[in-house]
Amino acid sequence: MSEQIRIGIAGYGNLGRGVEASVAQNPDMTLGGVFTRRDPGSIETGLPGTEVFGWGSLAEHADRIDVMVLCGGSKDDLPQQGPELAAIFNTVDSFDTHARIPEYFAEVDAAAKSGGKVAVISTGWDPGVFSINRLFGEAILPEGTTHTFWGRGVSQGHSDALRRIDGVAGAVQYTLPAAPAIEAARNGSGAGLTTAEMHTRECFVVLEEGADPEQVRATIVNMPHYFDEYETTVNFISAEELARDHTEMPHGGFVLRGGDTGGQRQLIEYGLTLEDNPGFTASVLVAYARAAHRLAKAGDRGARTVFDIAPGLLSPRSPEELRAGLL
Amino acid sequence: MSEQIRIGIAGYGNLGRGVEASVAQNPDMTLGGVFTRRDPGSIETGLPGTEVFGWGSLAEHADRIDVMVLCGGSKDDLPQQGPELAAIFNTVDSFDTHARIPEYFAEVDAAAKSGGKVAVISTGWDPGVFSINRLFGEAILPEGTTHTFWGRGVSQGHSDALRRIDGVAGAVQYTLPAAPAIEAARNGSGAGLTTAEMHTRECFVVLEEGADPEQVRATIVNMPHYFDEYETTVNFISAEELARDHTEMPHGGFVLRGGDTGGQRQLIEYGLTLEDNPGFTASVLVAYARAAHRLAKAGDRGARTVFDIAPGLLSPRSPEELRAGLL
Repeated sequence: MSEQIRIGIAGYGNLGRGVEASVAQNPDMTLGGVFTRRDPGSIETGLPGTEVFGWGSLAEHADRIDVMVLCGGSKDDLPQQGPELAAIFNTVDSFDTHARIPEYFAEVDAAAKSGGKVAVISTGWDPGVFSINRLFGEAILPEGTTHTFWGRGVSQGHSDALRRIDGVAGAVQYTLPAAPAIEAARNGSGAGLTTAEMHTRECFVVLEEGADPEQVRATIVNMPHYFDEYETTVNFISAEELARDHTEMPHGGFVLRGGDTGGQRQLIEYGLTLEDNPGFTASVLVAYARAAHRLAKAGDRGARTVFDIAPGLLSPRSPEELRAGLL
Repeated sequence: MSEQIRIGIAGYGNLGRGVEASVAQNPDMTLGGVFTRRDPGSIETGLPGTEVFGWGSLAEHADRIDVMVLCGGSKDDLPQQGPELAAIFNTVDSFDTHARIPEYFAEVDAAAKSGGKVAVISTGWDPGVFSINRLFGEAILPEGTTHTFWGRGVSQGHSDALRRIDGVAGAVQYTLPAAPAIEAARNGSGAGLTTAEMHTRECFVVLEEGADPEQVRATIVNMPHYFDEYETTVNFISAEELARDHTEMPHGGFVLRGGDTGGQRQLIEYGLTLEDNPGFTASVLVAYARAAHRLAKAGDRGARTVFDIAPGLLSPRSPEELRAGLL
């Protein structure tokens, strides 16, 4: 075994726990520690032996961590933590506010260059491997249409919106691809489909005592932006059922690219069926941490995305092994 | 429009015609010419305006072609043409004799370095985008199993084997993924499945007058390596039916990677459904020709595979546009 890549975890929620588990699956890596803004003594780690440090000691660990995986929230944590940590560590993150990616890239790029580091931003599955497949699709089939479907999976934002409704004691919302839209995307008649036409929304709601189900249902299906444009079903269940059947975090989806070459139809489909959404995202982050480490060792500096990184850098195998075994 | 990439086509069969059609779909490219070992005057091109040159004039065109796409046969042509042309041009090829890739890479690499060129070898769909998905699958889900299924599609080698049988006047063989094996690969019970268990073979055969169908059928299903290990069906049809229903070149298949993260199952599926196999392969080659051109302009030299090439290099869009629009 050559020298191992020392991974740090900044932020210890579901994603951080996923990174911890993923590092344990990769023999060329070792966990250098978890960094938390909570009291380190209060943290129960997923694996025995994982060291936990306070956020204030991050900088002290600069030469004990090869790549820091940022596991904070994309909305509230990463806009600040991304640039801050990229000045000190090689980093990987899953920043997923699509509209703000250009400005986030610029800030992280400047910070990473100032610190002589490599920062891989916005990886995971979407953005991430789905983005790569959107790019491959249009590069290979320039005359065609791309559709991205999400689900079946829990939407945290929509679940939160349900919980804020008067009379709702608890709720989970699943996003599902709409079967007629999938069919249209596959057969080439899907141009112009909207996100709302491509997906349906399924809500599981626990009512507070005395709440009027019909009023709650009407509030949900008419909620602007979140539900009004979608085919939405509302199921009322008990608190026990919610706790028993809806605590998992499945997700997935697929990217379809259909196009023509010389008048003949060609279809590319990339699909994910995930029992554990944060666990999969974490595994992608860890593979890109390997790439970040290699890029940094080769003298690369600044922010990078999945579009900039050659596939071979993700694998622990050498180029010779990859050519002989996987090509 | 910035300066266009000038593509050359070396060899003008189905693949070469596909490259010609694909270049016409890419506004940042122009066709510099087709090179053939046949009499150039005898060639009817797919598009008006395509210039055809004799093989002997290849070297004269060295400064009129940015990237030469090699469209000769993988078995008989490329082992010689690959190194020869990589010394003169930046090249892209679809060399697909998996077992010989390491030695082919070494020969092309030496030639390309001697000529100061970039040569992308073994791209298309398998090897090619399927290889990339095998790599991503095992890098992201290190504890798991990869399965590659091919079909439904025509196997040229197996069709040729049928045609060599006494009493066979014409034949086409389709390879199909076996449904039970797909199911096993998806649900995680597919470890150890053999290629023969994963596929079935469907033959459409025209008999010569007086040939004994039962004897031909027995010869087919017992043919070592080609059919004996497979579930094989033989359909006897007329010459008219063969000409009417079996001249298209559909193909496809999919790469499945199933794995566990923290005890939960994650499944990645990459699938192709192609009405025109050589047309799709050609489109992949052309996208990689764009990458070869950019690598060469950046000062890169030597042989490369799809594992070495960052996805962004395949797209005509700038890194900024890709981050804003596709990430």
